[in-house]
Amino acid sequence: MYCFETHIRVRYGETDQMGYVYYGNYPLYYEVARTEMLRSLGLSYKQMEKDGIILPVRSLEIRYWDAARYDDLLTVKVILKELPGVRIRFFYEIYNDRQVLLNTGETVLVFVNVRTGKPAKAPESLMTELEKYFLRETVK
Amino acid sequence: MYCFETHIRVRYGETDQMGYVYYGNYPLYYEVARTEMLRSLGLSYKQMEKDGIILPVRSLEIRYWDAARYDDLLTVKVILKELPGVRIRFFYEIYNDRQVLLNTGETVLVFVNVRTGKPAKAPESLMTELEKYFLRETVK
Amino acid sequence: MYCFETHIRVRYGETDQMGYVYYGNYPLYYEVARTEMLRSLGLSYKQMEKDGIILPVRSLEIRYWDAARYDDLLTVKVILKELPGVRIRFFYEIYNDRQVLLNTGETVLVFVNVRTGKPAKAPESLMTELEKYFLRETVK
Amino acid sequence: MYCFETHIRVRYGETDQMGYVYYGNYPLYYEVARTEMLRSLGLSYKQMEKDGIILPVRSLEIRYWDAARYDDLLTVKVILKELPGVRIRFFYEIYNDRQVLLNTGETVLVFVNVRTGKPAKAPESLMTELEKYFLRETVK
Repeated sequence: MYCFETHIRVRYGETDQMGYVYYGNYPLYYEVARTEMLRSLGLSYKQMEKDGIILPVRSLEIRYWDAARYDDLLTVKVILKELPGVRIRFFYEIYNDRQVLLNTGETVLVFVNVRTGKPAKAPESLMTELEKYFLRETVK
Repeated sequence: MYCFETHIRVRYGETDQMGYVYYGNYPLYYEVARTEMLRSLGLSYKQMEKDGIILPVRSLEIRYWDAARYDDLLTVKVILKELPGVRIRFFYEIYNDRQVLLNTGETVLVFVNVRTGKPAKAPESLMTELEKYFLRETVK
Repeated sequence: MYCFETHIRVRYGETDQMGYVYYGNYPLYYEVARTEMLRSLGLSYKQMEKDGIILPVRSLEIRYWDAARYDDLLTVKVILKELPGVRIRFFYEIYNDRQVLLNTGETVLVFVNVRTGKPAKAPESLMTELEKYFLRETVK
Repeated sequence: MYCFETHIRVRYGETDQMGYVYYGNYPLYYEVARTEMLRSLGLSYKQMEKDGIILPVRSLEIRYWDAARYDDLLTVKVILKELPGVRIRFFYEIYNDRQVLLNTGETVLVFVNVRTGKPAKAPESLMTELEKYFLRETVK
């Protein structure tokens, strides 16, 4: 298992007239968390695209428990529970600064070779980094 | 069952550098479809808010089968399969203009009394309009 | 001079907690109006990009007189006052359904050859269509 | 004069199919910079709204010199050149991480009393903080 946390400050333009963050803005926050998780592993999603691997989203699920508000400093927790193959599944939890759980989510993304348009295996560099975290566990 | 279709033209700003509509923009399209469905029943979500009922989203699910592209004229189909109670569940299907199914989704929203902050029953006016469609079916 | 009007319904997600359309969403509305103006001339911005001409924005100006609200059916008026060269300047006026002028704007975009990255002349097809409107005037 | 710098990482969903940040997303970045500037002065825009002062935007100007790209770590510089009265004018400069100037902008916002809907003077607390920076200059 590999967990990572990042922080996001809610922008005014991300709220709606209900006074909360619009429900459709959380996928953006999830994306930020995924990217920062990769960076924490020494990897760059930007570079991955340049290397010819894109990562379109196949499914998204969100359960909204409570609402984020303007200027909240959110903690976005992202979790990998299993090693990726052709697909990679991320779990998310968003908390506000009073540690209230606001929503939980899940996305499945697929590694796609941009030239062939076909699904591809996760890049070596990603697997090498991730295996450190998952090997440790299986050893236990 | 009550079905309704609306059409949405993809904006340039809704695409991302992959050349497709960003995965986080479909919730906006779903929202448009919900609002237009209510309007087709002679109801206004705007008026409902003024009457003190808000409708926050409790859950969102999307499965992405294919991608929408800039300037596509999408058909967003929204379906109610059961009468709402305190909750209302919408199903969605988005097609491009070549009738390719791009994604399917589901949202659950809750009627909330804005003064008390508590869940409330669906407004009478909505129930009256919807019952026409569902009674017809139960009679069969 | 060539004028064109299009209509946009304000989405919930485009409002902010002030209860108005977020000031940063009007550039999206202007984009829609530009695209629809081109379509009214029998042209497609999408096709133009496929033909190797992109049209990045060089400047944007907006004066906000009044605010759009959720579910307003806006009229976006877009005006070309002069024939484009390497640059094309659009003027905009947005009205709500009570004919209140909400904002006025201006954008300058540049035709760029996507292969060379250099500014290019406006495509022939666009000039041919537009000259009909401008020649008529100069004749008078 | 009071200057402040903040950093923003470009999100994937903020790019468009041209491969750059969509021109309509910079107003969001400007908003972030304004809010962070106020915070640097010990003030909170969120609190100001709770105290009954809102700050709608009256005008926006952007000149785009170069484009931001996905994952760029931008520096957003925001500058106050004069003390606010009923209006406050912010100037902006955005740089990428190679110190290339991407765009320059300007916004005018108006302090409005939310109860009366009328323009109001800038809050005391803001003036007190800002005067430190501007008095120093006038003394010279």
